[in-house]
Amino acid sequence: MNPLENIRIVLTDPKFAGNIGSICRVMMNMGLTDLALVSPREDLNWNEARKMAYKAEPLLDQIKTFQTLEDAVADCTVVAGTSARTGLYRDHAYLPREIAPVILESAAHHKTALIFGREDKGLFNEEIAVCTHIINIPSSELYRSLNLSHAVMVCCYELFLLAGSPAYEPPAECSPEADGAMRERLYAAWSAMMLETGFCEKEKLDHMMLGLRRIFSRGKLTGNDVKILMGLAKQSRWVAAALQREREKQVSGSVTQ
Amino acid sequence: MNPLENIRIVLTDPKFAGNIGSICRVMMNMGLTDLALVSPREDLNWNEARKMAYKAEPLLDQIKTFQTLEDAVADCTVVAGTSARTGLYRDHAYLPREIAPVILESAAHHKTALIFGREDKGLFNEEIAVCTHIINIPSSELYRSLNLSHAVMVCCYELFLLAGSPAYEPPAECSPEADGAMRERLYAAWSAMMLETGFCEKEKLDHMMLGLRRIFSRGKLTGNDVKILMGLAKQSRWVAAALQREREKQVSGSVTQ
Repeated sequence: MNPLENIRIVLTDPKFAGNIGSICRVMMNMGLTDLALVSPREDLNWNEARKMAYKAEPLLDQIKTFQTLEDAVADCTVVAGTSARTGLYRDHAYLPREIAPVILESAAHHKTALIFGREDKGLFNEEIAVCTHIINIPSSELYRSLNLSHAVMVCCYELFLLAGSPAYEPPAECSPEADGAMRERLYAAWSAMMLETGFCEKEKLDHMMLGLRRIFSRGKLTGNDVKILMGLAKQSRWVAAALQREREKQVSGSVTQ
Repeated sequence: MNPLENIRIVLTDPKFAGNIGSICRVMMNMGLTDLALVSPREDLNWNEARKMAYKAEPLLDQIKTFQTLEDAVADCTVVAGTSARTGLYRDHAYLPREIAPVILESAAHHKTALIFGREDKGLFNEEIAVCTHIINIPSSELYRSLNLSHAVMVCCYELFLLAGSPAYEPPAECSPEADGAMRERLYAAWSAMMLETGFCEKEKLDHMMLGLRRIFSRGKLTGNDVKILMGLAKQSRWVAAALQREREKQVSGSVTQ
């Protein structure tokens, strides 16, 4: 399979339909075909989208829509989100040229996603948390923020160039990686474990989980890895519950004594 | 001087003002400041341009306009034109990544131009003729033609990346290169020479000159080179004129004999 066709461009809550149309054209120019929207607004001007798509209407007509970002990437292994901001785990960001081989290698065997945030505010922290990798498109300090379709262009251009380069060879095989849905089940189990074992307070949980998500996204996370990590969380939660029962027993024991 | 500020983006006869605005934003994102229009239409919707420029209005407000492409690049040494088509000397095209060091090296010392054609028809052959280099932006065979602002984005992105790369060092010195105006004087002299010496028919002249322009644009052309080549043309034209006079003399001589 052509790896470019395994790469899904995901737009979270885009405000301007013209950008959606422009992105269809950019994608078709660069050999991509899979566009998804997360919770698209009711009032998007689809005529404007059609105008900007200009000869890329086939992509516009097969856009997928999802209610949540988690749903949009549930079948994707590598999930790379773009961010113009720094800080809060955004410092481990890749350049588009650095991430291109990671994405193509993933896309040679798995659905892979590139996430772009809303025009004015980018991706929220809880959306960044869903990403396995962060991409930072270099830009001038005088004006950091790119138009949405131009940000998509830069990323797709790097992927198209690398995929077409004679030097590029897709990996022959690849261990089965965990997809978005598996990863989310893992993080849910670990969140519960962290609370139930008393590892952290509820207020600190989101921050802790962001850190953990980064750690687990640094390399590939296979299906087997997830099974082990899930089992570990399950065991700790069982221990925590058992301890709780033990304590309750002692309390009630001391009362009845 | 920052070489990026020495690079002029030249748009020939753009149809949609929205693209002009988008290009202002792209340029400001990528550290460029010099935008020129050739023979802009009277009916351009500047409100649309302002909307798309979004925070890059300063660039919009300092756009230069020129009547001809030759005027727009008269002070530029390297003049690179983008083309999606192949054939007619377009085959010697560079990729944006290949041309970036050539452009930056030129821009370290001279005004340098990047030319983009009209949205629907690109650059005409006589505009391609003004260029010293041709750039071909890679794109999918399914949809070759990029939106104007996205074509500018790709080129500016490569320049911004290279200029900011720690590995990049601008050349310490540079021989004084011929600018656009000098080159056009040279080509005019050579055109006259080719006709006056009977090297080619008038109908073949444009085609011949395109070939010659390619040859002279392959390397750097210094001011001294131009002087020599101008002198050579002048001398051949003098010989051709002398021959003509000689023949006329003989004809009138044979008549009077």
